[in-house]
Amino acid sequence: MTQSREVHLVRRPSGVPEPEDFAIVTVETPDADEGEIQVQNLLLSVDPYMRPRLNGDQPFGVPMIGGGLGRVIQSNHAKFVAGDLVRHGAGFQEMFVSNGQGVSVLSKDPELPLSVYMHALGGTGLTAYGGLLEVGDLKDGEQVFVSTAAGAVGSAVAQIAKARGCYVVGSTGSDAKAAWLKDAAGLDAVINYKRQPLSRALAEATPKGIDIYFENVGGEHLDAALPRMNVNGRIPVCGMISTYNGGGQGVRNLFNLIYKRVRMQGFVATDFGHLNTAFVADMTGWLKSGQVKYQETILDGFERAPEALIGLFSGENAGKMLVRVSD
Amino acid sequence: MTQSREVHLVRRPSGVPEPEDFAIVTVETPDADEGEIQVQNLLLSVDPYMRPRLNGDQPFGVPMIGGGLGRVIQSNHAKFVAGDLVRHGAGFQEMFVSNGQGVSVLSKDPELPLSVYMHALGGTGLTAYGGLLEVGDLKDGEQVFVSTAAGAVGSAVAQIAKARGCYVVGSTGSDAKAAWLKDAAGLDAVINYKRQPLSRALAEATPKGIDIYFENVGGEHLDAALPRMNVNGRIPVCGMISTYNGGGQGVRNLFNLIYKRVRMQGFVATDFGHLNTAFVADMTGWLKSGQVKYQETILDGFERAPEALIGLFSGENAGKMLVRVSD
Repeated sequence: MTQSREVHLVRRPSGVPEPEDFAIVTVETPDADEGEIQVQNLLLSVDPYMRPRLNGDQPFGVPMIGGGLGRVIQSNHAKFVAGDLVRHGAGFQEMFVSNGQGVSVLSKDPELPLSVYMHALGGTGLTAYGGLLEVGDLKDGEQVFVSTAAGAVGSAVAQIAKARGCYVVGSTGSDAKAAWLKDAAGLDAVINYKRQPLSRALAEATPKGIDIYFENVGGEHLDAALPRMNVNGRIPVCGMISTYNGGGQGVRNLFNLIYKRVRMQGFVATDFGHLNTAFVADMTGWLKSGQVKYQETILDGFERAPEALIGLFSGENAGKMLVRVSD
Repeated sequence: MTQSREVHLVRRPSGVPEPEDFAIVTVETPDADEGEIQVQNLLLSVDPYMRPRLNGDQPFGVPMIGGGLGRVIQSNHAKFVAGDLVRHGAGFQEMFVSNGQGVSVLSKDPELPLSVYMHALGGTGLTAYGGLLEVGDLKDGEQVFVSTAAGAVGSAVAQIAKARGCYVVGSTGSDAKAAWLKDAAGLDAVINYKRQPLSRALAEATPKGIDIYFENVGGEHLDAALPRMNVNGRIPVCGMISTYNGGGQGVRNLFNLIYKRVRMQGFVATDFGHLNTAFVADMTGWLKSGQVKYQETILDGFERAPEALIGLFSGENAGKMLVRVSD
C-alpha cells in the first residue's frame, strides 16, 4: 500500500477551465495482486480532446481520463516485468494498479528520447499520420493548409506533408511559433492569425488554392479555408479547439462544400490501429533524419496537470504539452 | 427570323432577389442555319442552385443560366428532326438556335407526363438518386433525415429511402406540405420547423439517431442534425438554401463530426452521369408503381420566370418549380 495522488474533475467548467474545476486527491494505491501490475507514472499526455469530455463524459470522483507513459514497479502478471516502460490510458494518477488491460509495453528506440513516445511517436503522431494520409488521402505535391500548425498534431501534419513534397501553409498564434514553423519545420508560408486578418492572409498564401485543410480549430479558420478549397478537396476534422470552450463564431461558408465537392470527415486516433506498423517505421525514420522536428512543453510535477490542461487553451505550450510525474 | 424573349439579370441581388433584379428582353431569334436547330421552349426548370450564381457566375446581358425542355421546330442538323422533344441547358429564353451541343433528344415514356422529365426523371431526380445512394452510401433500413423534404429533390430522396426500407424523417415549412409528406409520401415522421423548435422535434423524431442527413438547408437545420448523427454517419450536402440570401445563422455544432466520424460531402448532379441508366430504370419503375410521388408548381407564361425564382426562397412552391413557356 502506497499513497499516491489523482487529479479529479470536481466541477464542470463553463468556458475555459479554471483551477477550481479540479482537485488533487490523495488515495491509497494497493500492491499488485495476482495477475496485476503496479505502475509508476512518468509522463502524462495533455490534449485538446480532453476539453469536450469535461462537459459530460468525464465522471467525477475518478482520475481524469487520458494517456500516459509509466514504469512497471511491481509485476504479478505474465506479460510484464518490473522495469518495463508502458503506455496506458489510466489517466491523471501518479501510480496505479492494473490487470494489464489497455497497458502495452513500449519498445523504445535507444536513439530517441522517451518523451517522443508521448507525441510524435504516440497517439498524437498517429493522429497526424492517419488523418493526413488516410482520411485526407494526401497525394504528393498537393496544396496543404494546417491550423494550429505549431501544435503537437499540427506540426507533425505539416512536416509529413513537406516530406511528401507538398506546398504547406500553417497558422499559429505567436511570432515565436511562426518563426519555428518557418525556420525549423520548413513550411512554405506561415500566418500569425493574431496579427493578420486570417481570410486575406490565407488567400495570399494559397495562390493555387487548398487541396487539404487539416482542421484543428473550427470557426473563423474553417470559414477562411472553405472559399479556398479546390475541387475534390478534403477537410480531415481532427479537432475544433476554438469551439470547445463555448466561444468562437458560427461557420457561415459551408456552402463552398457543394460546388467544390469537398469532403469533410471526422476521425480519432483509435481509428488508425491498422496503420501503426507503417506509422512507427515512417515516423522513426523522419525523426532520425530530422524531416520531422518537434517541440514539447513539459511541466514538472504531477500537481501541475490542471495548469497544463488550462494552458493548452491559451496556447501556452510550444508543441506537445506534457506533465512529468517522475524520472 | 422570329421575335422571342429572354430573362436577363440586370442587378446582383442583395438578400432575397427582387423583380427589379431581372429584365425581360425581346430579341430577334435567327432561323436555323446549316448544322443548327431552332428550339421552342416548353418548360423551364427553376432551382435553388440558381441563387448563388446571381452573386457572380451569372453574367449580365445573356439569358439566365438554367435547364429546360423544348421542341425542335426547325432542324438542319443530322441528329434532330422537327418535332423532337429535347432537354437543354440554354436557360431562360422562349426560343433559341443551337448547334446541338448540350441538347439531347428526350425519349419520353408514353405513360408519364412530360413535366416529370423536368424533376423526378430529370436533373432533380438524378441529384436525389446519386446524392443519397452514391455520396450518402445508403444502406437498407438506415435512419434518414431529409430537410426541405417536400421540395423537388427532398421528396425524391425521402421516397427513395422509403423504397429502400429506411426510417425517414422530413422537415418542411408548412402544414399542407407536412400533410402531403405524411399521407402521400409515407414518411415516418414530419417536422414543421416553423411550428416546432427544430432541435427538440428532431431529437424526438429520431430515437435511433441519424445515419444519413440529406442536407438541403444548412444553418439551424445542420446544427439540429449534427448532435443526432450516429457513428460513421454521412451528410451528403446538396444545398444550403438558408445561406444563399446571406441570412441564416452560423453553424456551431460541427465538432460532432469528430467523435462520430461523420463524413460531410458536397456534390452536384453532373457528377452522376455514370448512374444515369440505372437511375432512369429505377425512377421510371418507382413513378409507375407509385413508390415515388411528386408535386409540381407550374407558373404559366415565360414572363413569370423571375417570379418563380423569387418564390422558391419563400417556399411558395409545392415540389418542383417550373415555368410553362408553351404547350
